[in-house]
Amino acid sequence: MGAKTSFSMVHEVHVVNIEQASNSELQAELAALQTKYSQLRSLGLKLDLTRGKPGSEQLNLSDALDGILQGDYTASDGSDVRNYGGIDGLPEAKKLFGAMLGTSPEQTLIGGNSSLTLMYHTLEFALTEGIAGSQSAWGNSDSVKFMCPSPGYDRHFAICEHLGIEMIAVPMLDTGPDMDVVEGLVREDDTIKGMWCVPRFSNPTGCVYSFDTVERIAALGKLAGENFLVMWDNAYTVHALSETTSTLAPISELCAKHGTADSVFQFGSTSKITFAGSGVAFLSSSERNLSALKAHLAFQTIGPDKVNQLRHVRFLQNLETVFSHMAKHANILQPRFNSVLKTLDAELSGMGMGSWTRPEGGYFISFDAGPGLAKKIVQLADDIGVKLTPAGATYPYGDDPQDSNIRLAPSFPSLEDVQACVDVFVVCVKLASVQQKLS
Amino acid sequence: MGAKTSFSMVHEVHVVNIEQASNSELQAELAALQTKYSQLRSLGLKLDLTRGKPGSEQLNLSDALDGILQGDYTASDGSDVRNYGGIDGLPEAKKLFGAMLGTSPEQTLIGGNSSLTLMYHTLEFALTEGIAGSQSAWGNSDSVKFMCPSPGYDRHFAICEHLGIEMIAVPMLDTGPDMDVVEGLVREDDTIKGMWCVPRFSNPTGCVYSFDTVERIAALGKLAGENFLVMWDNAYTVHALSETTSTLAPISELCAKHGTADSVFQFGSTSKITFAGSGVAFLSSSERNLSALKAHLAFQTIGPDKVNQLRHVRFLQNLETVFSHMAKHANILQPRFNSVLKTLDAELSGMGMGSWTRPEGGYFISFDAGPGLAKKIVQLADDIGVKLTPAGATYPYGDDPQDSNIRLAPSFPSLEDVQACVDVFVVCVKLASVQQKLS
Repeated sequence: MGAKTSFSMVHEVHVVNIEQASNSELQAELAALQTKYSQLRSLGLKLDLTRGKPGSEQLNLSDALDGILQGDYTASDGSDVRNYGGIDGLPEAKKLFGAMLGTSPEQTLIGGNSSLTLMYHTLEFALTEGIAGSQSAWGNSDSVKFMCPSPGYDRHFAICEHLGIEMIAVPMLDTGPDMDVVEGLVREDDTIKGMWCVPRFSNPTGCVYSFDTVERIAALGKLAGENFLVMWDNAYTVHALSETTSTLAPISELCAKHGTADSVFQFGSTSKITFAGSGVAFLSSSERNLSALKAHLAFQTIGPDKVNQLRHVRFLQNLETVFSHMAKHANILQPRFNSVLKTLDAELSGMGMGSWTRPEGGYFISFDAGPGLAKKIVQLADDIGVKLTPAGATYPYGDDPQDSNIRLAPSFPSLEDVQACVDVFVVCVKLASVQQKLS
Repeated sequence: MGAKTSFSMVHEVHVVNIEQASNSELQAELAALQTKYSQLRSLGLKLDLTRGKPGSEQLNLSDALDGILQGDYTASDGSDVRNYGGIDGLPEAKKLFGAMLGTSPEQTLIGGNSSLTLMYHTLEFALTEGIAGSQSAWGNSDSVKFMCPSPGYDRHFAICEHLGIEMIAVPMLDTGPDMDVVEGLVREDDTIKGMWCVPRFSNPTGCVYSFDTVERIAALGKLAGENFLVMWDNAYTVHALSETTSTLAPISELCAKHGTADSVFQFGSTSKITFAGSGVAFLSSSERNLSALKAHLAFQTIGPDKVNQLRHVRFLQNLETVFSHMAKHANILQPRFNSVLKTLDAELSGMGMGSWTRPEGGYFISFDAGPGLAKKIVQLADDIGVKLTPAGATYPYGDDPQDSNIRLAPSFPSLEDVQACVDVFVVCVKLASVQQKLS
């Protein structure tokens, strides 16, 4: 996919700030952009910037996982990890992954290869059976609502939609969800049963929730009606792009302070630490919640794959070695993020055609085009062979009321392909913006 | 746990046939048995014959799994198994495990490490959402019933109980479920939505369903009301104890003949082929059913662990090598089964104190004591340190109406411990039987 040729061409187009440009300047720009767009089309690109998948170079970092056990299948408690048993995970896995979430082994449960599965089952359990007994089941009420800070993660929203939980979009600020809005909603409406959060390097904005935001979230369990649940998806907890990044306040300590431990489930996984499809997922919550969830899960599983847990603990060892390992990921990811940011800066800064985030970690850059342009931009890119995350995907029900947000996911393609994608992207942003301005 | 000493002692007790013995003979036997029982108690045994777990010698057979990939993580379709994606499994896994169930790759879906999870989600999906659309959901009706050939598998029954599906026990014959009863029920009551089956080396009787039984089960989809589901848990499909065993009729072919492919879900796993807690589970059904189930599962998983699928295919290779591998399991299991059967034969044949099965494969021997004695026998054994599967566990709701059936699971303990268990068991059977006769 001759990515190199596209790079030089894009930089020939330099529209002035769209608000200040005259009609004839815009017309000239439009013609130039249309020419560029046609040239890009002729390259026959077939690129994909849609999903937060690690690239193969990242996956190679964990190749030692397979074979690491060297015939020693005995866990720290003496159990044979090859056999049945143990629904809550190996002691050493609970210790390591509990620490990753800032909690204790006693408050940690190890799952299979997908934290999404743990989230789904937690919500389904709270909805249909009730975490604190059947009288606590959300489904006892006709209406069950969830707050969804948006832009957010489409798979979270899909779970709610599938389970019939009504979603309320809540604005995302640089500090996390707009807590004035959140607290207002929770005070007004006791059918609101929870909120999704990706607190560190949020998907897709990349923001890290501020201390104040985390503390206010930890306190929601008191403010809200009964059986309120914060779904704290800490998917990127150790996924910084550089050594100096904002820290996340420890929600479990803040919950302890506010007496709200039962109102938060934390989730994490090694999907973007080791192998995306073959990692270890985990969750933390109060011992009351874990005990109820385990009793529920016992009907549907013989317990998660303990051999893979042991592989992961032997490979990742402790938090310090995890951080060294994650630095290797950052070395691979950072050039890809820089490629996108550098091109956006060079091509779109001060043009009045959109704004974007500069994440310190995670997997995404969030781009806000002018209102009414996201779908158009995604379509323009798709038409010339560059797949972007569908416009609207970052909002509940796929409905971005401004039709403005686009999630850019630069991790998976090669560096060269990321550059080709962003080159196409800026031409599409400009073309759509100029076309709209002229229409 | 000085097992050897117990062995010699047991054989001193020889009660005559309980129906023919005089009262004084029974009194003498009772005294002798009580002495033996006290002697056994003094051994301080701590043995467990409860669950169908493979022993460590069996698990060792698959130690080559870890490390078998040797850095080659590419599946036959060129995909990188380390990354996300692929909810239905690798092509080579669908081929191998589909063949194990006698179906095609197209009719096969690969799961995680637990076929129980696949069964649970299939039933929950059929109940709450409906496999053929929402109008087909069993939950639309006030009453949902399932036929449970009994004695059967307690975890099947636990799923039904947890999901609120009413269970109807159906007698098990040597040929499988009593199909006259099954067909009669299905004709009479259209709220009966399905049936559990462990068709080969049934848990716990060990029987292999006869060709006629399988064909009649395949035809149930026509006889029964709409959306009827046979849950065909072929957990022991390749688990013969010797080379010459009864074959199981191919239900998918018989379903094709009767036009009932939508009415059967087949399940299997490598839990008792490779590692019990770290194997690969799979299911087969019609393409319509698989497509619906996949759409449902997509909300709750990123897809199963493909690295482990690839490990398993590289290790197990094809059906022929699977059979060679299973012969090694049989070599380990057969002495344990023989130990139980030899002792039962020697100690209880012709005594009128119970009957037992002689399975050609699987993990269990089913023992039927005299009516009203199973709980007593299990309690007597437990009191002197030998745990047996709880009496009643093999019946829906844990309720064996005859209080007669006891499942013996000789796979996990060492051969010496199996012998010690069965020595204790026969003393407990005799003691309970004589006590009952005298009371």
